[in-house]
Amino acid sequence: MLSPEALATALEGITGWTLVDGQLSRTWQFKDFAEAMAFVNRVAEAAEAMDHHPDIHVFYNRVRLDLVTHSAGGITALDIALASKI
Amino acid sequence: MLSPEALATALEGITGWTLVDGQLSRTWQFKDFAEAMAFVNRVAEAAEAMDHHPDIHVFYNRVRLDLVTHSAGGITALDIALASKI
Repeated sequence: MLSPEALATALEGITGWTLVDGQLSRTWQFKDFAEAMAFVNRVAEAAEAMDHHPDIHVFYNRVRLDLVTHSAGGITALDIALASKI
Repeated sequence: MLSPEALATALEGITGWTLVDGQLSRTWQFKDFAEAMAFVNRVAEAAEAMDHHPDIHVFYNRVRLDLVTHSAGGITALDIALASKI
């Protein structure tokens, strides 16, 4: 789990992601559902490649991802790496 | 929007779906993330075919779908039809 200082620094490097209830969270808006699902599938591929999986929420053309390392009880370098990749 | 009576009858016909905060909701559990995403993509295809889209929530190997017709302010026959199809 990252220290508060390390987390603050890491957040500066991953534009658009914010800390919400102890998770890294970001929302994207697309033209329509099909584009949102195409994005979700690219994210799923990146998640599988890293064996680290965000919670995915799809609301028609909006997608919210929430990232945390449950096993560590907080945000780790793995979350930052996946957020960067996405 | 369905009357409470029509909704109660319709719910009997779509096993596993329950009424949560005015939406039809159901959660599935799969072996892993890959199987969950395969299911999500089949749901997305059915949703596009009907031009009616559930909210989709993926938590690793669990998928929750929430269905409501926002434009009608409640659950309609369209939601019941999509739930049946899924």
